[in-house]
Amino acid sequence: MAKHLDALLNRPSEWLRGSGPLSEIVISSRIRLARNLQKLPFSSRATEQTMQDVLREATEGLRQTAMLKDGLVVDLGELDEVDRQFLVERHLVSREHIVQPKQKAVVISPDEVFSVMINEEDHLRLQVMQSGFSLQQAWTLMDALDDELSAHVSYAYSSDWGYLTCCPTNTGTGLRASVMVHLPSLVITKQINKVLHAITKLGLTARGLFGEGTEASGNFFQISNQVSLGRVEEELTENLARILKQVLEHEQNARESLLKNNRTELEDRIWRAFGILRHAKTMSSGETLDLLSAVRLGVDLKLMNGLDRTTVNELFLFSQPAHLQKLEGKRLSAQERDTKRAQLIRTRLGSSS
Amino acid sequence: MAKHLDALLNRPSEWLRGSGPLSEIVISSRIRLARNLQKLPFSSRATEQTMQDVLREATEGLRQTAMLKDGLVVDLGELDEVDRQFLVERHLVSREHIVQPKQKAVVISPDEVFSVMINEEDHLRLQVMQSGFSLQQAWTLMDALDDELSAHVSYAYSSDWGYLTCCPTNTGTGLRASVMVHLPSLVITKQINKVLHAITKLGLTARGLFGEGTEASGNFFQISNQVSLGRVEEELTENLARILKQVLEHEQNARESLLKNNRTELEDRIWRAFGILRHAKTMSSGETLDLLSAVRLGVDLKLMNGLDRTTVNELFLFSQPAHLQKLEGKRLSAQERDTKRAQLIRTRLGSSS
Repeated sequence: MAKHLDALLNRPSEWLRGSGPLSEIVISSRIRLARNLQKLPFSSRATEQTMQDVLREATEGLRQTAMLKDGLVVDLGELDEVDRQFLVERHLVSREHIVQPKQKAVVISPDEVFSVMINEEDHLRLQVMQSGFSLQQAWTLMDALDDELSAHVSYAYSSDWGYLTCCPTNTGTGLRASVMVHLPSLVITKQINKVLHAITKLGLTARGLFGEGTEASGNFFQISNQVSLGRVEEELTENLARILKQVLEHEQNARESLLKNNRTELEDRIWRAFGILRHAKTMSSGETLDLLSAVRLGVDLKLMNGLDRTTVNELFLFSQPAHLQKLEGKRLSAQERDTKRAQLIRTRLGSSS
Repeated sequence: MAKHLDALLNRPSEWLRGSGPLSEIVISSRIRLARNLQKLPFSSRATEQTMQDVLREATEGLRQTAMLKDGLVVDLGELDEVDRQFLVERHLVSREHIVQPKQKAVVISPDEVFSVMINEEDHLRLQVMQSGFSLQQAWTLMDALDDELSAHVSYAYSSDWGYLTCCPTNTGTGLRASVMVHLPSLVITKQINKVLHAITKLGLTARGLFGEGTEASGNFFQISNQVSLGRVEEELTENLARILKQVLEHEQNARESLLKNNRTELEDRIWRAFGILRHAKTMSSGETLDLLSAVRLGVDLKLMNGLDRTTVNELFLFSQPAHLQKLEGKRLSAQERDTKRAQLIRTRLGSSS
């Protein structure tokens, strides 16, 4: 496992900092831009030489921006499987980005607010992450990075179509704005499908914790815009924010209703989850997410004294398979991970057993 | 609710004292004798007058024995439903005994070792209870009570058949010896049905926690002899003890095997049960028994520091519906009981939440 990633290990990543506006429901806000370099073939037609050229040109360009001049350049081809998975768990790279790691890289700002995937589906995938409901702030940061970078590299751009991308769904602004929300009360009250259905009709899409094709574990949903063509960036971001506000309102109402009408059952669910987390001797990552989700709800509703959101958020991250193995400094079998995970959780939750 | 039963409330009853031989598996040993008074019709043909006569004659006789001269005479007809259920939960009377409580009584020795039901199926049902695997000791105590009592009342007895009873299955010795065992490991390792089947073939019968017709909750089984005719008392008791020893051996082997081959899963099961008990906000009595069973196994296997068998045993008893209501000093709805039960358990297990 790579030592140069250890700096990342010992702090929660930006997306789990647990602060920012409406952070009792919104984990993080993210803006992503898809960009390609002029005169070089898109990834679908790229040779290894092309990818090397993209990698060099992109890295050099990023190194000249204020945001990434001290950035960590991580060559995915040089990492082992655990380290690559580690980056996925921190939401610094996509799951797709690590499948064929050769000639692929990610450049990460020291605070993990900025990360740029190189040679993913597009030559460049620029990402800005902010805690809480902070789409506007994320967009401002992204806009600045995009501006700076465009002074050092030439983007593939058409005055008719806008930014050109490998997949036509990203063409135009190349923007995807997404927000990670924690909607346990909509799940408990069985309203979640209705809500997800409604936002799909409004041109948004909902995914699981680790993006496309992943299931919603721990009642986390990543909600993002589906269309990036024919609109200006601010409009896309504002549209997402506007609809999101309604989703948050639904979740807030559901929380209030549970507190008012089913308080005992709600507290029971939350404290049982805490009791199991605090004492179990072996636990899968899926069960961990579900139980932590309940405990996080308890913290957010101020039903649990002596436990803060930061502790819970750290557990969300550190209980993930690669994080566990990084903490242990060695590869672990699935069974060993389940035991270590339970041990880590017990320790962090202050259990003596 | 009756005040004169409060003395019983604040201590664990004999059958849950948690000491005695092999008490890590055997909760208690019990000897019961069925006796009827000469010259009075059996219960199936008894008028109210007959029952009154039985009640008076039996009570007077019992009052003259050393064991019950200070005994508490409880007229079931004068109790409310909660108090009657309270006696069932303490195994001082049978469930059948409280259905039609009029003209029925129980006489209880101060330490709850002796209890005599009057006007149950037979005029007299004498019971001796001892903690742990103590059939021989229970029989000695019972024999002494039976001897003393027979000096003061005349039993229905035939030199051909022995003691005459209402139901022919009890005729002869009138003896039923039974042992309450806790067999969680045979249940976990799915050997329990095989074992129960085998003991049935050997002339024994297995029942649930509260006797005939009740399910085996909390992995408790009440194992007793089926035949009481044509054998002397010592033979019946020894036969039960001999077969029981084999059952205990099976349970012990299963415990060792679990510790050796599935230690993590076993500890996980036990500690999760503890975690839920320690933090839940509402809990049914059925779930409580199951979770306490796991915790009790943990205590017996010395897997849990700082928790003793007495605490667990008290919870087995005090979490029962009538005990809860007696502790609270008022009737509670099922929902209120579930909340109070969880609260009681949390407090006794030292949780601050």
